[in-house]
Amino acid sequence: MNNDQTVQYEFGMIGLGTMGRNLLLNMADNGFSVTGYDKSEKMLQFFEEEGVDHQLKGFADIGQFVDSLQSPRTIILLVPAGTIVDSVIEELQPLLAEGDIIIDSGNSYFTDTSRRSLALKERGIHFFGMGISGGEEGARFGPSMMPGGDKKAYAVVKEMLEAVSAKVNNEPCVAYIGPGASGHFVKMTHNGIEYAIMQLLAETYDILKNGLRYNNTQIQQVFEQWNNGRLKSFLMEITKDVFQFVDEKTGNLLVDEIKDEAKSKGTGKWTSQVAMDLEVPIPTIDAAVSSRNLSKLKALRTALSQSFEASTPIKLNETIIDELEEAFYFAMVSAYAQGMHLLTLASAQYEYELNLAEIAKIWRGGCIIRATFLEDIYQAYKKHPGLTHLYEDGEIQQKINSGLKGTRNIISSAMTSGIAVPAYAAALTYFDTLKTKRMPSNLTQAQRDFFGAHTFERIDSEGIFHADWNKLN
Amino acid sequence: MNNDQTVQYEFGMIGLGTMGRNLLLNMADNGFSVTGYDKSEKMLQFFEEEGVDHQLKGFADIGQFVDSLQSPRTIILLVPAGTIVDSVIEELQPLLAEGDIIIDSGNSYFTDTSRRSLALKERGIHFFGMGISGGEEGARFGPSMMPGGDKKAYAVVKEMLEAVSAKVNNEPCVAYIGPGASGHFVKMTHNGIEYAIMQLLAETYDILKNGLRYNNTQIQQVFEQWNNGRLKSFLMEITKDVFQFVDEKTGNLLVDEIKDEAKSKGTGKWTSQVAMDLEVPIPTIDAAVSSRNLSKLKALRTALSQSFEASTPIKLNETIIDELEEAFYFAMVSAYAQGMHLLTLASAQYEYELNLAEIAKIWRGGCIIRATFLEDIYQAYKKHPGLTHLYEDGEIQQKINSGLKGTRNIISSAMTSGIAVPAYAAALTYFDTLKTKRMPSNLTQAQRDFFGAHTFERIDSEGIFHADWNKLN
Repeated sequence: MNNDQTVQYEFGMIGLGTMGRNLLLNMADNGFSVTGYDKSEKMLQFFEEEGVDHQLKGFADIGQFVDSLQSPRTIILLVPAGTIVDSVIEELQPLLAEGDIIIDSGNSYFTDTSRRSLALKERGIHFFGMGISGGEEGARFGPSMMPGGDKKAYAVVKEMLEAVSAKVNNEPCVAYIGPGASGHFVKMTHNGIEYAIMQLLAETYDILKNGLRYNNTQIQQVFEQWNNGRLKSFLMEITKDVFQFVDEKTGNLLVDEIKDEAKSKGTGKWTSQVAMDLEVPIPTIDAAVSSRNLSKLKALRTALSQSFEASTPIKLNETIIDELEEAFYFAMVSAYAQGMHLLTLASAQYEYELNLAEIAKIWRGGCIIRATFLEDIYQAYKKHPGLTHLYEDGEIQQKINSGLKGTRNIISSAMTSGIAVPAYAAALTYFDTLKTKRMPSNLTQAQRDFFGAHTFERIDSEGIFHADWNKLN
Repeated sequence: MNNDQTVQYEFGMIGLGTMGRNLLLNMADNGFSVTGYDKSEKMLQFFEEEGVDHQLKGFADIGQFVDSLQSPRTIILLVPAGTIVDSVIEELQPLLAEGDIIIDSGNSYFTDTSRRSLALKERGIHFFGMGISGGEEGARFGPSMMPGGDKKAYAVVKEMLEAVSAKVNNEPCVAYIGPGASGHFVKMTHNGIEYAIMQLLAETYDILKNGLRYNNTQIQQVFEQWNNGRLKSFLMEITKDVFQFVDEKTGNLLVDEIKDEAKSKGTGKWTSQVAMDLEVPIPTIDAAVSSRNLSKLKALRTALSQSFEASTPIKLNETIIDELEEAFYFAMVSAYAQGMHLLTLASAQYEYELNLAEIAKIWRGGCIIRATFLEDIYQAYKKHPGLTHLYEDGEIQQKINSGLKGTRNIISSAMTSGIAVPAYAAALTYFDTLKTKRMPSNLTQAQRDFFGAHTFERIDSEGIFHADWNKLN
């Protein structure tokens, strides 16, 4: 069928990098016919080759590409976030008809998605912002997908998305998220949680290596053991694998040969910045963002390491690894809780009407933050759809309480030893603040009224008050 | 001279709220003639009354107001940040001539200042963004001022600004900051530091009250004692005063009657958000921002306080107050260091050419974060103008090192006791990260390459690498 221009294909794809190609092959494996638009010879050849077994076709001409699609046309973009998305939309727009669907599957910033969605709506074109998580592997064999946009238009893509998505207990890891930019907002928050968990793993590694003086084999065993329990997750799994991966060049573990400067693409930063705009505290994610930035200050760190003592070992006891496991569990719960809390308050602010149970459900498989614990989150929100915060769930409370002593012990031991645990500490101080009925913020308000006449509220009566604090002098 | 329209005045002022009126009277006390623009009868009456002793005049007509000014006209805006600034500028612009000067003295966001500055430059009008700190008292009797804009135009306002500013050792707490929006950027950072110090004082209060079970008299004594030593500062001073201020209604200290929900106007949040854009870690300020947001979650905190144990007392020892003083000193240093570091990197990014010694110098008096310690910062940057970070100063290193054991002890004790110390913990983990030559971020990079093919760098050779991590499986 390759050369028959009259045959109509079900989906179009623009952007054939690793993620795009993998998702396309995933769609093809599931029996969907797809055309791609790309000007490079190499990419057209890819379609020739893969087209032998699948219903695939590549076009170097965007008009022919658009004409090859069934109506309503459904075009998936997997191009880098930013201005490229705008220029692709601009190129496509005059060729599309009312009712056609564009799905932006990159990590676009959610306010960009809002803007594009509104502009295309005026032309009668449905725009979806769809977060995809799972990396290359996920795209190829089943990612978790977070599509947000027009609910009716979702019916057109539902079957395909469910087919290509990851499955957990035979349930697809995709669901309609909500209107507007909700899909990209949820994906951004997913990535914020991802930053926090990765930072917690790095700090755990530091505690094991420099606090407990474990060698790589022992470190690997801890992560492997944890991955057989309640901490089981994709990130734990690859971490235990990292500590087995030998560098061909040196014969050492490759991880030991990697530079300690962590890069970032901005989604974690966005999460922290937006949360601040929405006044939602997510300090564990904030700590992960600032830690990546600290890692980039290699020259300063090297200089300062000369002037201050290095960390010292943590005093060992028989249950230290159990304590560390409890601390990880606690901090992991806190990181997810912060992300879910952000979604709850963002949903109210932006009228996304998010279903948090559904979001936890589709995160159980396919995505980078998939974890056994997501089943607990799913159950918590399924039982109590109006849950304000994950810390309110009875079972989670029980698990936190039973590990709290060990959690406090290992975190404060690390801080006494000079091992940097910013994300762990931020999780614990977040928890300690949230369980405090009476915070010391009355002092903050007194100070603000003292120097800036910013007024205050009282605990015993309604209203706004101001005191003449200087009358003391 | 009140009714003589031909008399020309030196300065004009728009926005006669508390800050505006106080600054205007300060200018008048220093012998400067000022006219104000305001439509309210009450405000015009204020000018009539104050004009008896001063060269002041009010106008309800903006044309007459502008005509009353000497050339080049210098007009100070003290209106709320945001769209009001734009509408005032729009109203003024057609009435002004080339070479005239507008000084926006509110807390405008620095990118707004950039935009306005560029737009007015095209019309030949000089625009200054000038941060003013010191609250009502400062505006009236000597604030710290941070003017940024055209350097030549600064000559027109220099004498007046130096006259009305606070003085330390007879030196004015004002200096030309740099071009463009640098003045507002520096003021924003000032406020970020302010947030951090206020949060540290709140956490200290919590430690004293709930950790050491001190009563208000004992708490007052600690702050009073500290304010006689190296922690002496405006915020420490008003804190010791707050703990003496009796509420007339209840007979208790007023601070005990104030609601524990801290409000904010956004400058702290901006500091954290911009720092993230610039990739500068300022986690102690971030923690102050998220703590204000946590304070707003009163209902959730009240609910969670039922499910988790409250904090327990900290084990007392004879030197516990000394440890707490050392911890406060350390965390205070870290908060200022983060702010100065942000200024250093922002200066490079935006080409502000900031003089950090000069900024520390003008913060020594008049502003909310004035403190004895600012003299040390001033000296550090005066000695080493190219200092990358305050932690690099030898004297500060000595003071940190001598108090580090106590600092670690009290912070980890608070965390063991369940007292929330987010800003203290963020200061310590920030320090511990910065003194680490080899961070565990190599694991983060390994993970990123594992799941997303994001590549990594090696410690033993230049270049960008990628490993086929899945070959393990």
